[in-house]
Order: sequence, then C-alpha cells, then structure tokens
Amino acid sequence: MNLSRRSFFTKSAVGAAAFVSIPSIVSASIAPEKEKSQDKYTLFENGNTILFQGDSITDAGRDREKELPNIARSFGLGYAFIAASALLKALPEKNLAIYNRGISGNKVYQLAERWQKDCLDLKPDVLSILIGVNDYWHKRNGQYDGTVEVYEKDYRKLIQSTKEKLPNIKLIICEPFYVLKTSAVDGTWAAPMKEYQEAAKQIAHDFNTLWVPFQQVFDEAVKHAPATYWTSDGVHPGMPGAQLMAEAWLRVVG
Amino acid sequence: MNLSRRSFFTKSAVGAAAFVSIPSIVSASIAPEKEKSQDKYTLFENGNTILFQGDSITDAGRDREKELPNIARSFGLGYAFIAASALLKALPEKNLAIYNRGISGNKVYQLAERWQKDCLDLKPDVLSILIGVNDYWHKRNGQYDGTVEVYEKDYRKLIQSTKEKLPNIKLIICEPFYVLKTSAVDGTWAAPMKEYQEAAKQIAHDFNTLWVPFQQVFDEAVKHAPATYWTSDGVHPGMPGAQLMAEAWLRVVG
Repeated sequence: MNLSRRSFFTKSAVGAAAFVSIPSIVSASIAPEKEKSQDKYTLFENGNTILFQGDSITDAGRDREKELPNIARSFGLGYAFIAASALLKALPEKNLAIYNRGISGNKVYQLAERWQKDCLDLKPDVLSILIGVNDYWHKRNGQYDGTVEVYEKDYRKLIQSTKEKLPNIKLIICEPFYVLKTSAVDGTWAAPMKEYQEAAKQIAHDFNTLWVPFQQVFDEAVKHAPATYWTSDGVHPGMPGAQLMAEAWLRVVG
Repeated sequence: MNLSRRSFFTKSAVGAAAFVSIPSIVSASIAPEKEKSQDKYTLFENGNTILFQGDSITDAGRDREKELPNIARSFGLGYAFIAASALLKALPEKNLAIYNRGISGNKVYQLAERWQKDCLDLKPDVLSILIGVNDYWHKRNGQYDGTVEVYEKDYRKLIQSTKEKLPNIKLIICEPFYVLKTSAVDGTWAAPMKEYQEAAKQIAHDFNTLWVPFQQVFDEAVKHAPATYWTSDGVHPGMPGAQLMAEAWLRVVG
C-alpha cells in the first residue's frame, strides 16, 4: 500500500466547497464516497488492530470494566460504535480487532499518562485520536491552566513518540469541534477553539496523517436542523450527531 | 403517499437472487440501494413517530428507566440504535421521534400484554416489530408451551387490533432468524424456525406490511466470515451483525 504524503493528508480536505448543494451533509462537507465497495477501506489490512482514542465523545459511556475488541458494551453509544460496527460489517474477511479507549474528561496530557497501557500495549496498526475540546473547555472554566501552546506541544510529542515506537502506524487525527447555539457553547468559543483546531490540523499535516474535519461537518449540519438536534450541549453529539461523525470518519478512512 | 399492496410487500423480496455476485452482503440479499438520497426514506413524513418493538435483539441493553425518543441510552447497543441514528441523520428536517421498546425475553403474547403502554399510547406512525425467536427457543427448552400456531394466531391478532386502533399505521415486520454453527443454535433449529418465519411472512403478506428478510441476510453473511463473527450464540447479533441488520432494515424502509 503506497500512500503519498500529498494524497494522505489532502484526501479529506478537498471538495468541501464544491458539494454544498448535494443533500447529504457528509457529502457536502467531505469528498464524495467511493462508488465501488471493493475499493473502500483499503487502509485496513488483514489482521489489523484499530484503536479509537479520545475523551468523552469517544468514550460515550463504554463499559470500562470490559475493554474488549469488537464488543458493543466496550464501545459505548457514540461515533466509535457506529464507525466500528460499519467497518466490521464491511470487512468480514479482514479479521480486524477494534478497540475504544476514550475516557471522559481527558485532555491531551491525560492521554499521554495512560498511553503505554491504552495505546502502545495494544500495538495498533491504525490509531484514531479525537482530543482537544477539554483542553479548551477546562481552561475556560478554570479547572486547568494549559494553553493552546501546551496542547500543541503535548500533542506533537505524543504523536512523535507514538511514531517512534510504532513506526508503521497509520494515524487519523480528528478535529475537535464545537457547535454554537447549544446549552454549553456560545459565540465566545469560536475564536479560541479555532486555535486548537489549527494546532491539531498543523500536527496532522506535519505528521502526514489522515484528517477528519468534524467542524465543517457540523457547520453544514446546522443548516438542516437546529444545533441542539445534533448536540444538546454543543460538545457531546446525540444520535444523529454520532451518526454524522461516524459517516465523516468512514468517508475519510474509506 | 400511495403505497400499493404489491409494491409495499414485494419491495424487500425482489432482487435476492440477482445480486449474489455483488460484494456487499446486504446488496446480495436485498434489493439495491436507491441512488439518489432525496428519494430515500419517503416512508417517513414530517413529525412522524417511529417505534421499534421486539425482544432482546431490539432491547439490546437499553436503559428502561429512561424510555425517551432519539436518546442513545434509551436505545441500547443494537440494530435499532444504528438504524435510528442513521434515520435521524438522514432526515434532520422531518422532526422524527424514534422510540425503542423492545424487551428481552419477550414472546408475541408478551408484546400483547404491554401493547397499550408500549405501542398504542405512543401513537406510532411507523411500527417495526421483530418477534418470534423466543416463541420457539423457550418452547424448545421447556420454559413455554406455545406452538407455532399460537405464535401466528397471537401475532395476527396483535396486528389486526393495532390496525383497527391506528388505521394509518405503517407496519414493518422483521423476520425472526437463527444462525447455525454458534453457541446456542444447531441444525435442529432449522426446520421449526422456518415454520415461525413462514408464519411471520404470511402475516406480513396478509396485512400488506413491509418485510425485512433477516434470514437471507445472515445466510449471505456467513459466506464471508464464521457464523460467530456475526452472532456469538446464533440469536443475538454482535457489532457487525447489528450493523448488518440495520443496513437491511434501512434498505427495506428506504
């Protein structure tokens, strides 16, 4: 499998403007779906281990007592469950092992603290990370004093060290997002959150990872229903928001 | 909306043989997906209430203390969650309210006992039912003495009475299914389960409902991975099995 630097990073960024008139929200914000199903998900090879990492959005109420691969209760009720179920269904011959190890409330430094157990020990072939909203939110509400510079530095160090220890790992960095006109998020989130998003995107670019542009997906979604339809508090997605995220994620990896 | 008797029932049955060479398991067992997204899910009208009913396969560990529409915890980790999330994402303008009221262990007579509270009071516009495997299984293991004739009689009565009380209801009857070479199901299930399946199918035909042919979907799936990949015990689907069911269900209603 030969993924050029250019195609790997830009894949998810193209087409954002061009498809706004197409009814599907995901098509409107991410490049169109591949037509032939046999060409889909070639990122994943036989016997691969895939890991979802992140905060509460990834955790989604999973049963942390039983951290098993490919088991619904170990996945919780979020985008990771929907995306993993779709992958397992789409690739029955590939014998994939998919884990969810997101933990509610995590910031990037907290991923680092548990990285040996919750990432390196699993030896993932494909690693998807969604982290950043708490780095901002907890700073905003006074529970944490890390800045966006700390976020970027810690995140970069985590990715660097992961690539050193697992040189063949394929990385997916997901954009931390916010949705205005919801119970927890108002317009004052926009400017600072954009800095965290830029930091994450720059890391994705520098390390040539896949990039899931969740912000543009939700920006498109709120044209079709009130913001709270997708996420009540502006951070945690409900059912349609989780589906939206899963579809966007699958589109990027597929 | 004008659904002719013929088109309504046969929709899900056509194409089963013709598409066997297509890689997608659902395409191989159910008619192909509609190409244009604006033509999808026209079954559902603005403000509709949709109800999933059934046994443990539908229940899927949902939180029965909070039986709310469109809320993940009220859905559990099964096909109903995946299908409902997909519908809510696909139809943001339609203001749908989707409920899951499946209860583990239920047989058809137990649906009838709780029908006022768990169906009629919700006034569903669209009702999907998956019931029957316990009617057989509990008889088989001596916990229940109802026969397939009782199942068909009770089921027919339930549908008849529902249509009398909610004359405009749109019904989806799902085929109860079994998967051989699993922990709970062996070859001796096949002949008796086929009788329950025939009974359900006959009711779907007689009442002109949509029909979700889950058996042929799983029969196709086991060509691609061991039976236990889809369902460990042969009755309850795992993540890929739940995804498979959701896709089949969505294909039939879409």
